[in-house]
Amino acid sequence: MDDKQWERFLVPYRQAVEELKVKLKGIRTLYEYEDDHSPIEFVTGRVKPVASILEKARRKSIPLHEIETMQDIAGLRIMCQFVDDIQIVKEMLFARKDFTVVDQRDYIAEHKESGYRSYHLVVLYPLQTVSGEKHVLVEIQIRTLAMNFWATIEHSLNYKYSGNIPEKVKLRLQRASEAASRLDEEMSEIRGEVQEAQAAFSRKKKGSEQQ
Amino acid sequence: MDDKQWERFLVPYRQAVEELKVKLKGIRTLYEYEDDHSPIEFVTGRVKPVASILEKARRKSIPLHEIETMQDIAGLRIMCQFVDDIQIVKEMLFARKDFTVVDQRDYIAEHKESGYRSYHLVVLYPLQTVSGEKHVLVEIQIRTLAMNFWATIEHSLNYKYSGNIPEKVKLRLQRASEAASRLDEEMSEIRGEVQEAQAAFSRKKKGSEQQ
Amino acid sequence: MDDKQWERFLVPYRQAVEELKVKLKGIRTLYEYEDDHSPIEFVTGRVKPVASILEKARRKSIPLHEIETMQDIAGLRIMCQFVDDIQIVKEMLFARKDFTVVDQRDYIAEHKESGYRSYHLVVLYPLQTVSGEKHVLVEIQIRTLAMNFWATIEHSLNYKYSGNIPEKVKLRLQRASEAASRLDEEMSEIRGEVQEAQAAFSRKKKGSEQQ
Amino acid sequence: MDDKQWERFLVPYRQAVEELKVKLKGIRTLYEYEDDHSPIEFVTGRVKPVASILEKARRKSIPLHEIETMQDIAGLRIMCQFVDDIQIVKEMLFARKDFTVVDQRDYIAEHKESGYRSYHLVVLYPLQTVSGEKHVLVEIQIRTLAMNFWATIEHSLNYKYSGNIPEKVKLRLQRASEAASRLDEEMSEIRGEVQEAQAAFSRKKKGSEQQ
Repeated sequence: MDDKQWERFLVPYRQAVEELKVKLKGIRTLYEYEDDHSPIEFVTGRVKPVASILEKARRKSIPLHEIETMQDIAGLRIMCQFVDDIQIVKEMLFARKDFTVVDQRDYIAEHKESGYRSYHLVVLYPLQTVSGEKHVLVEIQIRTLAMNFWATIEHSLNYKYSGNIPEKVKLRLQRASEAASRLDEEMSEIRGEVQEAQAAFSRKKKGSEQQ
Repeated sequence: MDDKQWERFLVPYRQAVEELKVKLKGIRTLYEYEDDHSPIEFVTGRVKPVASILEKARRKSIPLHEIETMQDIAGLRIMCQFVDDIQIVKEMLFARKDFTVVDQRDYIAEHKESGYRSYHLVVLYPLQTVSGEKHVLVEIQIRTLAMNFWATIEHSLNYKYSGNIPEKVKLRLQRASEAASRLDEEMSEIRGEVQEAQAAFSRKKKGSEQQ
Repeated sequence: MDDKQWERFLVPYRQAVEELKVKLKGIRTLYEYEDDHSPIEFVTGRVKPVASILEKARRKSIPLHEIETMQDIAGLRIMCQFVDDIQIVKEMLFARKDFTVVDQRDYIAEHKESGYRSYHLVVLYPLQTVSGEKHVLVEIQIRTLAMNFWATIEHSLNYKYSGNIPEKVKLRLQRASEAASRLDEEMSEIRGEVQEAQAAFSRKKKGSEQQ
Repeated sequence: MDDKQWERFLVPYRQAVEELKVKLKGIRTLYEYEDDHSPIEFVTGRVKPVASILEKARRKSIPLHEIETMQDIAGLRIMCQFVDDIQIVKEMLFARKDFTVVDQRDYIAEHKESGYRSYHLVVLYPLQTVSGEKHVLVEIQIRTLAMNFWATIEHSLNYKYSGNIPEKVKLRLQRASEAASRLDEEMSEIRGEVQEAQAAFSRKKKGSEQQ
């Protein structure tokens, strides 16, 4: 396919990313109006560059006429504050009726060898196009800010210096991922303690009001 | 309802407008990639201000507990270049599976007494919210740039000087609407002639290539 | 220049268009808060496609190393409701200190042979880039909704069927432009009458309050 | 000031945030075209809610007629991948000619007692308004993803359970901030090692090409 054909091929994927970005950001807006903690901190989306699509197709021996089976041409990323938020967001996505979850991979229960942590869902998204309804695969990654921090840096190091990352540096990256994960857990525990302090405070306040 | 309650009440309507804006703008993007004339020139959307909702509820005696029956709390406007584009857009909206058309009013076949021209569709839009699927009514107005030009000015005159527009000025507005409508037709006819010129040109070119 | 080099060359022009779109749209927001008639109805912006840049460079014999002298690589369009708004917007742009007006062409006082009407300003916009301040030329077109309606259609006919528009159709386009211009004037006059009606109404109201 | 007056007062601050968001995001776009590591990962902006303005004015005894001296009514936040990027971004902001830096606070060299880390700049931003040029104060915070991760959670805990956070939990938050900071340093060191590996790899490649 030449540039123009790739552009045309990617149009439905771009449209799916734009629609899902607005839809998922809408979840955060709802919580803001309820003045409640939003399980979603922010949402980003992108369409895989053609060069990366071709590279992955070679790596995974996906023939061009089956390129639509590639799950992450359209990609969304949902960032959460706490690890527990990931489960809440996952359940919300499963409950939606505007797409169907067709695959999932839990790289949190079992992180990748590199130290990468994230929860991946693959959904089949029905898009209304000029020539009728078309379904496209979209990968949705759900991760904490700490996981995102680590993954963003690991990605830019890998991308920038692909093939040149010595083994001992990879080891340090894995340990850094462990440290980020412990930080996640620590923040969740702190939140738990603060929630208990909050509950005790409310009970005490109610008790003094009734006397 | 106080301000905060109105804000919360309008959240799903704001979300529906944002989602439908991205979806309808996506139609134009498709045509741009096909390097073809897009029946949609641009799309705008708004949520009705609370003051206007209350004013219309009074005017139409809609009790507050039935306010969700008001059809244009969420509103979208699709502008087209040519009158014929309106029919194409209408058919596209009827063909979509992400909402259902529940009402329509043809102010083009029969314009309002003021001279107002537009095609109105009312759709029931299924919104995925944190507490499950919620359907909201959305009014979609489809009009030409000329109709929009006239309606924008008539609206701002009406809004700015409501109650002070003398009868003879209203008459001039009606005549201006007729002139705008003739201009619409003239542009459509010109387009028809140019399309014929284009076809004749292509036939002539093919003929000379075959000799 | 290959695709990548053109993309890099256009980066400052894209940035200038994005910054000026936000700045000029901000003018409308101000009027909305003052609950006053905004002289600006809406703003659009675009960077000239590379193919059109090359075509214009050939037509105007601009050598590639002087391409930065082309005034409309970055383009903004300001739409107004009334012809008188154009003068107000013009004065606002001259008064700004974040760019300098370096050229202007009044196709309203003297429309183009085709019937095209618009007021063109060319400004030198100082852009803060990673390697210091860079000045880029930006063309700002100011026109009424009616002028825009006509120009949008004339452009799409010309673009779609370039070279195939017969003389007699061009003549009809010119006449349609006259009709659009008369419509503009008619709407301005109506506005004038309505303003008088408004003033008379306020005087009458004040009079009855003082008795 | 009633709601309407506050809205009008905040209009220039909203406009300044919108303009600076587009300007600062433009820096990242430039690096993307150069296919280079961008010191800016992403930019967010917000206008301080009226309730928070009033609360801070009380806390800092700023009289209402001097409210314009409050430095963070308009606020932008620049997130970086590496600690070293913060210095690069700082120098870029100082070099710009579209605003002047009037104040700075280095909460990285010396973090707040809570554990909060960020670099704060206060700039005087010249805004072109309908009634001429108006200068507004804008606070720009520059921080790493790790600092942002910690600060986002500390803020939501503080906001949600203000007054109920027991001392021992504050202590854990401080320790978590230390851990996040060590993670930052670790990632920077890893980057340093990878850069060396990259340089060694390029030298080796050049050497084998010359033989």
